[in-house]
Amino acid sequence: MPTLLVLDAEPPPRLGKLTGRARIEHADASTLAERLPSADVLLVWDFTSHAVRAAWPGEGPRPRWVHTASAGVDHLMCPELAASDTVVTNARGIFDQPIAEYVAALVLTMAKDLPRTWELQRERTWRHRESQRVAGTRACVVGSGPIGRAIVASLKALGITTALVGRTPRTGIHGPEDLDRLMARADWVISAAPLTEQTYGMFDARRFGVMQPSARFVNVGRGQLVVEDALVDALDKRWIAGAALDVFEREPLTPDSPLWQVPNLIVSPHMSGDVVGWRDELGSQFVELYERWEAGRSLPNVVDKQRGYVPGH
Amino acid sequence: MPTLLVLDAEPPPRLGKLTGRARIEHADASTLAERLPSADVLLVWDFTSHAVRAAWPGEGPRPRWVHTASAGVDHLMCPELAASDTVVTNARGIFDQPIAEYVAALVLTMAKDLPRTWELQRERTWRHRESQRVAGTRACVVGSGPIGRAIVASLKALGITTALVGRTPRTGIHGPEDLDRLMARADWVISAAPLTEQTYGMFDARRFGVMQPSARFVNVGRGQLVVEDALVDALDKRWIAGAALDVFEREPLTPDSPLWQVPNLIVSPHMSGDVVGWRDELGSQFVELYERWEAGRSLPNVVDKQRGYVPGH
Repeated sequence: MPTLLVLDAEPPPRLGKLTGRARIEHADASTLAERLPSADVLLVWDFTSHAVRAAWPGEGPRPRWVHTASAGVDHLMCPELAASDTVVTNARGIFDQPIAEYVAALVLTMAKDLPRTWELQRERTWRHRESQRVAGTRACVVGSGPIGRAIVASLKALGITTALVGRTPRTGIHGPEDLDRLMARADWVISAAPLTEQTYGMFDARRFGVMQPSARFVNVGRGQLVVEDALVDALDKRWIAGAALDVFEREPLTPDSPLWQVPNLIVSPHMSGDVVGWRDELGSQFVELYERWEAGRSLPNVVDKQRGYVPGH
Repeated sequence: MPTLLVLDAEPPPRLGKLTGRARIEHADASTLAERLPSADVLLVWDFTSHAVRAAWPGEGPRPRWVHTASAGVDHLMCPELAASDTVVTNARGIFDQPIAEYVAALVLTMAKDLPRTWELQRERTWRHRESQRVAGTRACVVGSGPIGRAIVASLKALGITTALVGRTPRTGIHGPEDLDRLMARADWVISAAPLTEQTYGMFDARRFGVMQPSARFVNVGRGQLVVEDALVDALDKRWIAGAALDVFEREPLTPDSPLWQVPNLIVSPHMSGDVVGWRDELGSQFVELYERWEAGRSLPNVVDKQRGYVPGH
């Protein structure tokens, strides 16, 4: 019976279905290195943990398959894992529509000035303002995977003209060489790229500098895509009109983080894709993949370990 | 030259185009009764004023045409105006898409728990929560005019299953007899009906009582459609999960109104349709109608004065 090692903080749902078909063991950061060599499969359930990078056994015995219950794989990739013949899969598909809805919520919230409405409600103050029409505005969505494409679909449904930017230009997708030009004319810049060497810190002072003063920035990808100090500076100096961050360089944000109180910045706790039932869906997806693996069939959602994401169609 | 009397608090834009073609006079609540008999056309620019009701001259000389820069006509209709041969037109079309976007913003905001995100941001607290997927939920939209239909279109674009309720059942539109049944299974009940004798207070304790505990209510129609005390009670008792009001029985809300602090209630200051440029659009629309009237052509947007709205297609 294969050994399935689960890196978790709380037990994943749906694994009961594998009773008698996998020897399920659990590990945390302190026990992972010791248990990894004897595992056939590693399920990275705790996607906030960077323990895999530290514990990966290099040349020695190791899992043949690693699955992460997340879209991004930046928290587990290391050169040794990338160089090995271990297959890595991700939770592709689970978060697409929820994140797309979340981005639509943020865009509409900012257009309709709801944060200010809240403040005024707290202050018991009736103050009529004009708000923005979103139909006819322009968005630049960075990240051409299923999440980025779902975001494009939901923004288009609101009448927003969208441009999608990916690593490799192809039909309907711009290459990185178009990014500055597209950002310069966008009303909304949406960051939904995977975190890789190429994308680390891509939203920096220069890029915020090309945006329109009326434009707004949203990050639902990974915190490290954004140079946070540069964003705060861009907001302070009114280079851009607003921003919303769901992900951060260091999570969770601590109470003393200056980000909580930056004017025109919405801060949310890495929750954009997490709709009711998400853990259950992630568990079911893993069980489905396990059954394919057990049967010797090919796995979907296989990550290109050099690029750091599942290559697109 | 016809006399155009404008009931306003601030001068409407675009009337300069009528120079030499209309004698433009202005009135406020105190001078309206005196000036109405000599006016050929009345433009009700201040749609918050109820002065027309009080000042309407009855049998005597009166404007042949009254235009209101609003979708609703409840603020100006009175039995004498309804009985007269004076034509009443409204601002049909201007607010449809902006209000539909505003409703989508409120629905997504509530589904994604953004009000709580704000509170937690103020408190510098990182607290992950699960939010709701809106695709696949059900909405019941009350009011089958262009605003209600635009709301249906924008909710459908988000993957929400919608039912539309109007005064008269017809293809794609339910009659009032279906309302309770539709409200009972809706996740979102959206009020966008005109205020008439039939709709006054239609959202009362009994109707909030049939809603699901997880459902939410949004009013972008007129405040008097809702029995506010009954809504507050329904929220207090958790009969429903949340509500958003953009319109109120008495506007503006005063600082001592209890509505500002009802848990799970979003209060906004009658701004749902007012996107940047709205006054300009209202002015242009009136000038266009004036040119048709001046040329003796038939007017669009003619209100059925008995029903209190522009009859639909």
